[in-house]
Amino acid sequence: MERTKFKHHTQIRVRNYEIDWQGIVHNANHLLYFEVGRVTYLCDVGIKVDINTIQHDSKVVVARNEIDYRSPARFGEVLEVYTRISCIRETSFAFEGFIEESASRRLISENVSVHVWLDHRTDRPLRVPEEFRKWVQGFEGSNVSIP
Amino acid sequence: MERTKFKHHTQIRVRNYEIDWQGIVHNANHLLYFEVGRVTYLCDVGIKVDINTIQHDSKVVVARNEIDYRSPARFGEVLEVYTRISCIRETSFAFEGFIEESASRRLISENVSVHVWLDHRTDRPLRVPEEFRKWVQGFEGSNVSIP
Amino acid sequence: MERTKFKHHTQIRVRNYEIDWQGIVHNANHLLYFEVGRVTYLCDVGIKVDINTIQHDSKVVVARNEIDYRSPARFGEVLEVYTRISCIRETSFAFEGFIEESASRRLISENVSVHVWLDHRTDRPLRVPEEFRKWVQGFEGSNVSIP
Amino acid sequence: MERTKFKHHTQIRVRNYEIDWQGIVHNANHLLYFEVGRVTYLCDVGIKVDINTIQHDSKVVVARNEIDYRSPARFGEVLEVYTRISCIRETSFAFEGFIEESASRRLISENVSVHVWLDHRTDRPLRVPEEFRKWVQGFEGSNVSIP
Repeated sequence: MERTKFKHHTQIRVRNYEIDWQGIVHNANHLLYFEVGRVTYLCDVGIKVDINTIQHDSKVVVARNEIDYRSPARFGEVLEVYTRISCIRETSFAFEGFIEESASRRLISENVSVHVWLDHRTDRPLRVPEEFRKWVQGFEGSNVSIP
Repeated sequence: MERTKFKHHTQIRVRNYEIDWQGIVHNANHLLYFEVGRVTYLCDVGIKVDINTIQHDSKVVVARNEIDYRSPARFGEVLEVYTRISCIRETSFAFEGFIEESASRRLISENVSVHVWLDHRTDRPLRVPEEFRKWVQGFEGSNVSIP
Repeated sequence: MERTKFKHHTQIRVRNYEIDWQGIVHNANHLLYFEVGRVTYLCDVGIKVDINTIQHDSKVVVARNEIDYRSPARFGEVLEVYTRISCIRETSFAFEGFIEESASRRLISENVSVHVWLDHRTDRPLRVPEEFRKWVQGFEGSNVSIP
Repeated sequence: MERTKFKHHTQIRVRNYEIDWQGIVHNANHLLYFEVGRVTYLCDVGIKVDINTIQHDSKVVVARNEIDYRSPARFGEVLEVYTRISCIRETSFAFEGFIEESASRRLISENVSVHVWLDHRTDRPLRVPEEFRKWVQGFEGSNVSIP
């Protein structure tokens, strides 16, 4: 991943209960860390994340997740979660993220996730709204690919 | 994924606390379901999963996870988790898995994960042991690719 | 707890990711196991657990939890979760539960939880509905205390 | 709980995936928050929390948990977790904790947990070590009860 393209990061401290029997952060918890990154990103960019989705016409669901585990994260470590929206297509968009240990800048893991905009009732794909496109472009500039 | 190649499946019932605010199984829980599939597979094939890894010379870690979410899983649904080892390389091997809703056979999600064998102390890659290769070949036959 | 009063139990197999760095089921996961017991109890007694609470007039929330840990649960163990409703008061009711390892009948943990019926909008306590009282009495008979 | 007796607090932000289908923090997650409080407390007081327990002669396990839920915590809220050791007995000690929403100081929940010192191999109770008693007394002063 091209690190220079990332403008957003947030910090997480590894918690006791996130460690598995191997003494490292369990592989599924990386997904949760990246989600913290994405939610914080959206809030910071100005896009309201609203849990009352049932009242809305549309919803956004995760369609795909890729994670590469580069080195184990350990109890008590402080992690920087870097997040960006790399691409917006017709009805979907992609986040990229990577996690570094804060002090050593050791690479922990990398994530690409794809999200689809759906009609809340019919589950049919919808065009990613203009407002969302503008917000992301406003923040990412030319780093976000919009074919 | 070629469904006919899967010889192993195990059953899971979606639990209350695995549902998120969207009313569906949270995306990270799919990883946990696939892990249940893998651990059950290893036990059923005869490979002991031992949590006292600290006493061993080697350990196995997850290097990569890919998940495609095909349709949401909902509270109370019974899921079939299909699992196979598709490939064994020099120092790593790959699992494939998919999840179906039991009654309707609706496809829920698909997973490919890559696992690496490491020296417990030095974290250097080790050759996947002969014993493991034989067990898997005994179960998978020609379905497992061993280049 | 008076074991002879329990008419309902359900089975759980300890999963890999529920084990913490001490090699035992993490203390918070016992709460999740007891919840599986309660939800299964309600379903089996005929009380529909509906996640679409937002469409209802009332909701049920957890007001208190007590857990006594008697012995550690370990990876791969099969657990029996025993559940009963021990008491229905004006606006609340109490569940009792205990967990046993299936083969040895070793006591793992015990739980008492208190649940309150609330108006969905105002969060004011509501009288536990007659229908619920009847269902529980029908199943528990004289074992449920209704002062 | 006597709030003036608490000298330690730490901050948590409610994460997306900690919210359940009712739109509030799931009841089991409160236990995790209190654990974050306890682990941070121990670190800040100078007591090393070491996950390599297998190499030690003794271990500390949770014997009991009580949680009173006072008001729901919601997505994005910042929580203050207050923690203190209220009592040290011969072979056990007790933590007290409470959680407040940071801005409004709304009480979220309260916790009492009891922890027992055990011999790592025999699981027999051990006397709480002098060093631990001194550390806690040094931090808590006369607020900690040592009968």
